Amino acid sequence: MFLKHRAVRIDRTRREVEFEDLEKGGTKRVGYDRLVLATGARSRRPGLPGEEAPNFFTLKDLHDGVRIRQFVDRRKPRRALILGSGYIGLEMAEAFRRRGMDALILYRGARPASRMEPEISAEILKELERNAVRFLPNQELLEFRIDGRDEIVEVRTNQDSYETDLVLAALGVVPNTEIAREAGVALGPTGAIRTDAGQRTNLPEVFAAGDCCETYHQVLEDYVHVPLGDVANKQGRVAGLNAAGGSASFPGIVGSQCFQVFSLEVASTGISEQTARQKGWDIATQIVEAPSKVHYMPGASPVLLKLVFERPTGRILGAHMAGREGVARRINTLALAVQARLTVQEVARMDFAYAPPFSPPLDPILVAAEQALKKVSR
Amino acid sequence: MFLKHRAVRIDRTRREVEFEDLEKGGTKRVGYDRLVLATGARSRRPGLPGEEAPNFFTLKDLHDGVRIRQFVDRRKPRRALILGSGYIGLEMAEAFRRRGMDALILYRGARPASRMEPEISAEILKELERNAVRFLPNQELLEFRIDGRDEIVEVRTNQDSYETDLVLAALGVVPNTEIAREAGVALGPTGAIRTDAGQRTNLPEVFAAGDCCETYHQVLEDYVHVPLGDVANKQGRVAGLNAAGGSASFPGIVGSQCFQVFSLEVASTGISEQTARQKGWDIATQIVEAPSKVHYMPGASPVLLKLVFERPTGRILGAHMAGREGVARRINTLALAVQARLTVQEVARMDFAYAPPFSPPLDPILVAAEQALKKVSR
Repeated sequence: MFLKHRAVRIDRTRREVEFEDLEKGGTKRVGYDRLVLATGARSRRPGLPGEEAPNFFTLKDLHDGVRIRQFVDRRKPRRALILGSGYIGLEMAEAFRRRGMDALILYRGARPASRMEPEISAEILKELERNAVRFLPNQELLEFRIDGRDEIVEVRTNQDSYETDLVLAALGVVPNTEIAREAGVALGPTGAIRTDAGQRTNLPEVFAAGDCCETYHQVLEDYVHVPLGDVANKQGRVAGLNAAGGSASFPGIVGSQCFQVFSLEVASTGISEQTARQKGWDIATQIVEAPSKVHYMPGASPVLLKLVFERPTGRILGAHMAGREGVARRINTLALAVQARLTVQEVARMDFAYAPPFSPPLDPILVAAEQALKKVSR
Repeated sequence: MFLKHRAVRIDRTRREVEFEDLEKGGTKRVGYDRLVLATGARSRRPGLPGEEAPNFFTLKDLHDGVRIRQFVDRRKPRRALILGSGYIGLEMAEAFRRRGMDALILYRGARPASRMEPEISAEILKELERNAVRFLPNQELLEFRIDGRDEIVEVRTNQDSYETDLVLAALGVVPNTEIAREAGVALGPTGAIRTDAGQRTNLPEVFAAGDCCETYHQVLEDYVHVPLGDVANKQGRVAGLNAAGGSASFPGIVGSQCFQVFSLEVASTGISEQTARQKGWDIATQIVEAPSKVHYMPGASPVLLKLVFERPTGRILGAHMAGREGVARRINTLALAVQARLTVQEVARMDFAYAPPFSPPLDPILVAAEQALKKVSR
């Protein structure tokens, strides 16, 4: 057990938090002047009978990871069935394949990592195929079939039934906000705790940080729930400083993220084409496929880069990349462009460092921005 | 022979260029309406007797490279002596070591890559030592000693004499401006051709691009001669477009560059601490050593990052990095920050993509900017 105490109630009148002692049982109370809620999030569960089976797993914390590894070590399962297709599901498909298991992803949506651009999903799908991961879209989960040992042996969907030795539900997370809500802390429409840039909640003595709370998205100009480690880290510093009487602020995010699935790097910043169109913005996009470095260098490989930009200003609203190298670390240059509200006109003129082991003379970012120029003012 | 014709004279009256035919001899003339000078640069030579020896080399073009490789293949030299310590000298030290040769660098200055920060030079020196390259500073070249086969067998300096089987002079380049100057094209104080942002020279029908001309440095707000391939590439496009009647412009550089020496990546953008101080600016610097990615990932290694920034504005004037991975591609994020005139306050708040294979939760850039905050307004 990694967690020794669990907060079960906030007593605002007495300024105390009540904790359940998970080892010895019973409760204890701890007083506070300022309170920082960092209650995190928990894995979303399918909500079906069979989830208590010893071969059903979610993956949120170290404890979950150890449980999966112990099961795989001990039982040597041959097949893993993964529900969901975000980065946890994709990374775990790779982990199971590396252990020599079959990996099958069943997903409700149409394509892997469906929050990414369709062009990026297509690259992920190819990488899954290259690595013998089966991906089946448009699957509505209906039932877990259990055997005499109370283990899940089959997963039934609207499409078919799938035998398996292990089920991993990677369906995203739900913020842990119950004790906050009961204490009167306001939540946003995302279901996570709403804070201001100082990580203050609506209650003057209560702060919140991390996966339990929302984040301001600077491109959307709205609050989102993006539970990522680096964001939590930054929010925590601000909440801690301010709870101690400081005046720090967290200006929010632009949605930068990256992950690796097998040999494919995927990275994204800003907003998607679809989101921009849904917001009614006049936009254009530019897709290029350009080499990660000079063609004669070992490891040179194509980088797919899609820019989403506003017309007629040329302001870069989003950038999305996939490739076998030089992707994740390139996205931060575009993250900075999005956050500094730079335009494709400005980025096309940037002076980047060039050497054959690291980039072509014209970096893929410059190629994309240059080509985008023609579409800015049409 | 790679070059078949060499321009020897510009005849402005008749709007013709006279070329020497290097294969058949004689000259021929080609008419022009607009002329683009892309005469490049040539290796700077020591200017001592012995430079015609078959084991004396410079390295500027493919022909030079082939000549060196043929000599090494045929003669199997045991020792290489390199004059100069810029990136060509350092890369060639690596190339010679990879061929199993001893490599000795004799340098006039005090430290390798002396245009970089002293802290970066110290990392390069360690990398040279790890790879058994001898680096000897403060060497004034006095004499090449020649044997009966007219080969250089010893190099004498103000410090000592050094036996060798091969000499590579990597002393930088000199712009090829002779025919331009004779035709009345104005040069800058750097000795290279002065152009405006449209790559126009002082003569209305003459344009110039690449290593033969200067470049505007946006941080220095002055013209510099920085002969790099990516800059030449961009200038060439602008010169070509404008010579053909277009109206393109090249806004200049901020001095971004990178190279690799053995396993060390070195990258730089903007200006050095020394240059900033020489300009009389009120600056501060921040040096951090932070991991390239999360410590448990294979290949994680420290990245040295030095920021140079103005006070009290916090404007980032330069960034300089060295490390075993994740350096060259990180510099472009800072190149963009320098070029967009962002401050350490702004960069400290950037939302970068985080995943363990690519960066720690707080990227070294964020760590450096965060720590720099304390020095901004002191």
